[in-house]
Amino acid sequence: MVGTDKEGRKDETAELALRRGFMWQAFEIYGGAAGFYDYGPLGALLKRRIEDKWRYFYRREGFYEIETTTIAPRAIFESSGHLESFIDPSVVCNRCKSVFRVDETVNVNTKCPECGGELEPSGEFNLMFQTRIGVSKSEGDEQAARKSEGYLRPETAQGIFINFQRLLKFNRDKLPFGIIQIGKAYRNEISPRKSLIRLREFTLAEVEVFVDAAEKNSHPRFDEVKDRKLRIVPREGEAEETSVGEAVSRGIIANEYLGYHVARVAEFLESIGLPRAKLQFRQHLRDEMAHYATDCWDAEFLSERYGWMEIVGVADRGDYDLSAHASSLNIDLRVRTESGKIMPHVIEPSFGIDRIIYALLESAFYEEQVGKEKRKVLRFKSEIAPLKAAVFPLLNRDELKSKAREVFQQLRDASFFVEYDNSGSIGKRYRRQDEIGTPYCITIDYETLEDGTVTVRERDTMKQVRVPIAEIEEVLV
Amino acid sequence: MVGTDKEGRKDETAELALRRGFMWQAFEIYGGAAGFYDYGPLGALLKRRIEDKWRYFYRREGFYEIETTTIAPRAIFESSGHLESFIDPSVVCNRCKSVFRVDETVNVNTKCPECGGELEPSGEFNLMFQTRIGVSKSEGDEQAARKSEGYLRPETAQGIFINFQRLLKFNRDKLPFGIIQIGKAYRNEISPRKSLIRLREFTLAEVEVFVDAAEKNSHPRFDEVKDRKLRIVPREGEAEETSVGEAVSRGIIANEYLGYHVARVAEFLESIGLPRAKLQFRQHLRDEMAHYATDCWDAEFLSERYGWMEIVGVADRGDYDLSAHASSLNIDLRVRTESGKIMPHVIEPSFGIDRIIYALLESAFYEEQVGKEKRKVLRFKSEIAPLKAAVFPLLNRDELKSKAREVFQQLRDASFFVEYDNSGSIGKRYRRQDEIGTPYCITIDYETLEDGTVTVRERDTMKQVRVPIAEIEEVLV
Repeated sequence: MVGTDKEGRKDETAELALRRGFMWQAFEIYGGAAGFYDYGPLGALLKRRIEDKWRYFYRREGFYEIETTTIAPRAIFESSGHLESFIDPSVVCNRCKSVFRVDETVNVNTKCPECGGELEPSGEFNLMFQTRIGVSKSEGDEQAARKSEGYLRPETAQGIFINFQRLLKFNRDKLPFGIIQIGKAYRNEISPRKSLIRLREFTLAEVEVFVDAAEKNSHPRFDEVKDRKLRIVPREGEAEETSVGEAVSRGIIANEYLGYHVARVAEFLESIGLPRAKLQFRQHLRDEMAHYATDCWDAEFLSERYGWMEIVGVADRGDYDLSAHASSLNIDLRVRTESGKIMPHVIEPSFGIDRIIYALLESAFYEEQVGKEKRKVLRFKSEIAPLKAAVFPLLNRDELKSKAREVFQQLRDASFFVEYDNSGSIGKRYRRQDEIGTPYCITIDYETLEDGTVTVRERDTMKQVRVPIAEIEEVLV
Repeated sequence: MVGTDKEGRKDETAELALRRGFMWQAFEIYGGAAGFYDYGPLGALLKRRIEDKWRYFYRREGFYEIETTTIAPRAIFESSGHLESFIDPSVVCNRCKSVFRVDETVNVNTKCPECGGELEPSGEFNLMFQTRIGVSKSEGDEQAARKSEGYLRPETAQGIFINFQRLLKFNRDKLPFGIIQIGKAYRNEISPRKSLIRLREFTLAEVEVFVDAAEKNSHPRFDEVKDRKLRIVPREGEAEETSVGEAVSRGIIANEYLGYHVARVAEFLESIGLPRAKLQFRQHLRDEMAHYATDCWDAEFLSERYGWMEIVGVADRGDYDLSAHASSLNIDLRVRTESGKIMPHVIEPSFGIDRIIYALLESAFYEEQVGKEKRKVLRFKSEIAPLKAAVFPLLNRDELKSKAREVFQQLRDASFFVEYDNSGSIGKRYRRQDEIGTPYCITIDYETLEDGTVTVRERDTMKQVRVPIAEIEEVLV
């Protein structure tokens, strides 16, 4: 499944990710299941670094993190509109009975991609995974059965909205405030064919900013971001390179709050190493928006394999969610402000962490001729690379190995993620680290035993410098 | 539900945790659902710190983390034995039809705890949450329906076992190695009545150490831990205080690997602040062990409310899991070693993160008389406290407030988790921070404007010292 696409092109990124232990299809030995991926040791490290940087990024905004459950009872998704609206139209093959999601390549006028049969509409399919909580009191009682229905959350956001009163109180009853959450979300996709991109279980990192609608057009820190340049693709008009300030003042981006968060999303994506030239913000068409959104800008990454793909959505959810829960429950979720009691609006940057990791792997991947051989290298920014350094004895001799082990242990004790490797030629060991994006390789040789210096070789330039052991840590930036 | 127990005793810990935003029952505004809790801003911070310390702790062992899916297809739990064996016997009330798990307080000889009716056996109940993956090809086809059955994982461990071949390869085909994973796990408990303790959705932090059975009795670093003192409660014989080395050499703990990991678990629990006097290791009775375990030691915490409760299990799973998957799939999962091809054994420390957080909250909670009033304080170790410091202007005057804001921003920019508070008397502000366990309070007064010093007040001693602004960061340890 990984390795080639429909046209048989090899997916170098996926192939490398798989071979070097970043990620692989889940349940492989059981034949796999579409839409599920596991992160291996290097992928999990990369993911952890991205998530930690993200937390730190939004903490600077003063936002607190919460952690809510991934299962929730039916009633919540009745209110939120997901039971009714979180659906995909599907088609079924009249020959092999395969079911497909209707999208740009499959619709009723095409043939079945599996067997070539005729496709017929097969109704709408809710994308939430359903389960049952507890043992219902009396089987056959429809009301009790419905009450015990639970769903895996399709977004982390609802866990924030239904806790709004407590969160408002934590913020001493004042607007605006922001809450963040990172966690698993689930969409029971009908036929997830884009292997690493359309997952049934995935990680979202979401920010929900609650703000008085009357203040959406004056963000207190807008000045900090207004000059940031973006490539934008508005719903109407042409794609263009412009500044956030300009886009807001011309009314292309509806308000300062939305503009502020679009700019911060761009800043974050660039800060982890995604190239600006491969990023754009595209405004959703009216018929493309989720049922809760009044406006939405997707941060898109230009993938060599998939074309422009969404990696973050920045939505203006208006007061949709709080109003929906308030009206279902017949409770008041309004907030007292100087101008009366208002229903807060929500601005939501929602990051698809797995897609961001895919984008990072793809854009960091380079293949270059070095002498007679091809060098494959992942040019991660040093601060997100899974490993910071690898330590090698130059030769497989006891005196070099024990010194190398000592340096390795010293760096591990100093909290660096490092690996020890003494197998194969030194060139082969360099290549192995290049492939997984390790910024530095440290080699212990006979000079080390004499003068206490090692060679430190940098991944991208392949330059080597001699550094005293005591100073290695300063070089590993 | 939180606040009082069956006998109407107030649960001070739960009450404080709730009121101050550590955690609360999930879906509160929807009436709640037993067995589901959310972490609020302070609880999520505390949880993050525990998880990060845990990661760091096992990284020192050289163990890599992976992240596997929470949903898995039925076939995996058929092999692992969970479909057949992960069950609880239950009873049903013949009057109100409530279903209860059979435990120490409810069995067929007792009355229904809800209505007083007669209880009758109602069969066995699998504790896994079931769901369905995708749209099955043909409704009514039993085999297809079974193939699309999925379950939410009851432990993270299976995700490690089924990836064993890839992980072994990542470790260059050598034993021993360890893999860790932190993530959600799920148990569809029949009637979860111990509010914060028996959750249906919870976080596990699991370690799976793969080792040649022939080497289980010689752990290379056993010397580092052998003198650690533990209170142990063996399956046979009396509870006693002994060292790990002693317990292993007398055969009470079966081997060095198990002993080593029991000792490390004790070290970790003490390192985050659980008092040694409230910890013991109890060996499971033979009929109490999970279906996969050949031996198991629970780390138990002495709760004022619940008595001794399990917070970590250290199991010797033998070769149960790898053998089970190998035999189901008819594949070979053995590893070539110097002595031939062997099936690795697994030692598994499995940490219940939510219970550890409960134990931390309960054991850190003190109520003490200060002058005329009672002071409630959470004596967290400084490194796990949700906030490091709070910054106050002494009086509600502009010149003090702006200086306090400045100090607050300086600390936030330096990556400290800090809060700003200018509401209420200074005494009231101290109490508020004591209640959430903040180690330091920093007050800006008129002296600050003159000589640039602030008062720093320490939580436990309540002592105050004057410190120059430039040196605050050094004091916040």
